Amino acid sequence: MPPPSFGTLDQTDLTALRSICGADFVLTDSPDLAIYGADETEDLCFPPEVVVRPQTAVQVQAIMRYCSARRLPVTPRGAGTGLSGGALPVHAGVCLSLERMNKILEVDTNNLVAVVQPGVITQMLQEVVEAQGLMYPPDPASRGSCMLGGNLAECAGGPRALKYGVTKDYVLGVEAVLPNGDRIRWGGKLLKNVTGYNLAQILVGSEGTLAIVTEITLKLVPLPKHRMMVVAPFDDGEKAATALTKIFMARLTPSAAEYLEGAAVRCAEAKFGKSFPQSDADAHLLLELDGNDRTLLERDAEAVGEICLAEGARDVLLADERAKMDDLWQMRRGISEAVKSVSIYKEEDTVVPRARLPELVRIVRDICARHRLSAITYGHAGDGNLHVNILKRDLSDQEWDERLPGAITELFEKVVAMGGAISGEHGIGWVQKRYMPIALGPAELALMRGLKGAFDPDGILNPGKMFPDEAP
Amino acid sequence: MPPPSFGTLDQTDLTALRSICGADFVLTDSPDLAIYGADETEDLCFPPEVVVRPQTAVQVQAIMRYCSARRLPVTPRGAGTGLSGGALPVHAGVCLSLERMNKILEVDTNNLVAVVQPGVITQMLQEVVEAQGLMYPPDPASRGSCMLGGNLAECAGGPRALKYGVTKDYVLGVEAVLPNGDRIRWGGKLLKNVTGYNLAQILVGSEGTLAIVTEITLKLVPLPKHRMMVVAPFDDGEKAATALTKIFMARLTPSAAEYLEGAAVRCAEAKFGKSFPQSDADAHLLLELDGNDRTLLERDAEAVGEICLAEGARDVLLADERAKMDDLWQMRRGISEAVKSVSIYKEEDTVVPRARLPELVRIVRDICARHRLSAITYGHAGDGNLHVNILKRDLSDQEWDERLPGAITELFEKVVAMGGAISGEHGIGWVQKRYMPIALGPAELALMRGLKGAFDPDGILNPGKMFPDEAP
Repeated sequence: MPPPSFGTLDQTDLTALRSICGADFVLTDSPDLAIYGADETEDLCFPPEVVVRPQTAVQVQAIMRYCSARRLPVTPRGAGTGLSGGALPVHAGVCLSLERMNKILEVDTNNLVAVVQPGVITQMLQEVVEAQGLMYPPDPASRGSCMLGGNLAECAGGPRALKYGVTKDYVLGVEAVLPNGDRIRWGGKLLKNVTGYNLAQILVGSEGTLAIVTEITLKLVPLPKHRMMVVAPFDDGEKAATALTKIFMARLTPSAAEYLEGAAVRCAEAKFGKSFPQSDADAHLLLELDGNDRTLLERDAEAVGEICLAEGARDVLLADERAKMDDLWQMRRGISEAVKSVSIYKEEDTVVPRARLPELVRIVRDICARHRLSAITYGHAGDGNLHVNILKRDLSDQEWDERLPGAITELFEKVVAMGGAISGEHGIGWVQKRYMPIALGPAELALMRGLKGAFDPDGILNPGKMFPDEAP
Repeated sequence: MPPPSFGTLDQTDLTALRSICGADFVLTDSPDLAIYGADETEDLCFPPEVVVRPQTAVQVQAIMRYCSARRLPVTPRGAGTGLSGGALPVHAGVCLSLERMNKILEVDTNNLVAVVQPGVITQMLQEVVEAQGLMYPPDPASRGSCMLGGNLAECAGGPRALKYGVTKDYVLGVEAVLPNGDRIRWGGKLLKNVTGYNLAQILVGSEGTLAIVTEITLKLVPLPKHRMMVVAPFDDGEKAATALTKIFMARLTPSAAEYLEGAAVRCAEAKFGKSFPQSDADAHLLLELDGNDRTLLERDAEAVGEICLAEGARDVLLADERAKMDDLWQMRRGISEAVKSVSIYKEEDTVVPRARLPELVRIVRDICARHRLSAITYGHAGDGNLHVNILKRDLSDQEWDERLPGAITELFEKVVAMGGAISGEHGIGWVQKRYMPIALGPAELALMRGLKGAFDPDGILNPGKMFPDEAP
């Protein structure tokens, strides 16, 4: 599997890694390797030869210096919650887990920033800062288990991205270890900084292929005092998508605007044993608004509801009790897992200009019908970001393998033709790299290869990801 | 002046450039060359050998292909309003002016984006979108004459950056021409996109050293319905800075928070023949708030005013008439020019964590006193971004040359020690590059050189900028 240019680990290597991290933090047992060989991407598993779990940036430097000299492939890993296979050690070698670098180093309430290590669980930071009246907005569905380092590597989004932006909008500074073991720092507690190239931003979304981030300075914002949800079931998914466009055209800015097909909602109901209002509808809009003035918020929520009704919503339900809202969000966040439990599936992370969402909904349904596949679609419609889950259900392996690639290729070609992109927030990783030439041309890919070479001339860091395989 | 590796232009080159752009758009007369040899940085002038003014990306590609083959240095130029010498053709060669690529290609009110060419004047875009109820927030003081391409190259900020962010936060997509003439596109009307490395973000703030941007997709936001200003004069500049910190700690988010030393205000009064309230004060805070609910806005403005009074403001003045607010902003935006008319000066664009602003104010005053220099300080205090204008006044050339570098070095060292950076929004360009080793270490600078090499292996694009000169 590893191309001939990579070394394979031997006992000397294991001894060296144990002397860097401590023997307890170097794993080589098969069950451990299997765990670290998988993430949340489909049912893939590529076990590494060894797992190292450093606790300090100095240890990360020593590991990288050693692996660089030995040309050993290194795959960095956060919580392994990724959906594009970014953390899969596809060339075996070393899995470098950041899970022990899990400290919130500082919450600076004067400057509204937090300084964290990469292994901090996203929700943990959110709860700590919320207790101080602040908010860290990016909220991927996996926020209860994913880590901030992984969020940075993938430029994670989530529902609130609509109003608050994605991870890149919150990264003010980084410390990172380069493949050669050098440690760099860029930025800090600064809202403006143009001192040299923005080395922090080039790392955001680079999927662990350029450097290993060992410390992050994140922007925080004041926590809004109030929030409120609006749920609108529609008998026609396209009309739900159209209603959303009208909401934005009315200059209303919900803090989240999720589109959920009925089938997605019913999967979540079955999974969690809870009911969603009018779950027999073709599709739902799940909207949240937030702000500091309750009256203003109620007025905006009513305006949102009126637009939904005018566009054909069956009904509009408002929720402002914490418990009820938490229930709705739990079901929304659990959809991915719920759909996964129904069938083998392949998830595509399409994104288009927001106003073209109704068209995307129609295209997905049309492609699936023509390729005789079934799909469950849901996602962050306010960003034009729809997760299309194509399900195997009772297809034979042969039918699945024959129909799937053509359907995905057609979907991505249509998305790109609409001015969209093939990944909004999950990344390219291992499972989408073959489709990259649909999204980017030879000049863009050559430039990306040049950037990769500037950081990682030997190509040891997270090899086999993002870039389409070269023609043989 | 050009290092031996660069070619010098001959008649064949001029003929080739004329055949690409049309003879009317290739300038070689000395007065023209002198104009394009200067920007707004001090009194520097480095005339190019030729100015080319292409109108299309295809022409830009042809120019770059030609200059690349001939190894001719190319300095891209927007409006020439930069303050760090980014547009100065310090190695002569070709000045590539984007001024004729000045079309707003689209204002998409459904997706809340604008697609523009790089030569569009910032204020022109702002006025066009405001007429449609939208806002393009970045507002550098030069917005009436600077261009969006230059804003992208420098990652321009301005007062509203405080609430709305800087240029990087609005760039969703780019089309750009690489030094070898290849044209790349990345992103588009997409609020989320993780398809490959973020090639748009690496160009933002790269000061025209990596590629020439030929089209930009910019995010727009709904225009707030109301705004209101608060002016607070203080007898002690440090107390003004402290009041600002308290305002943020109270979770109030002004849309702008400017700090103006009395001397800066008095320069502007003299320049514009207008009066500023209580201009004899040591320093002023000039704050703006915006929002959609007038009552809420008034409540927040009052809260801001009360904090200022509690921290020692002489008085607090509210303004909500358009004409009065425009007057105040005109004076604020004119300060740079007004200070420039007083004396030869050197402007430093310091930025520190916002809460350390009072300390920065004290440090600037202390350094100037010890080095026997006078300074006028003002800027975007809400971002921790202070422009320190050191004035020559009646010093001899020798005194000026002896005192200045030591003072700047000490200022930058102290700023970096405070967790700050040596440029917040003006860029490094030509005039700050010698100080880069204070801000970034050898590993960061080596990585930056690697990135530069990936885009521009021959180093023909905007040579002599950003990077400190190598030791001989």
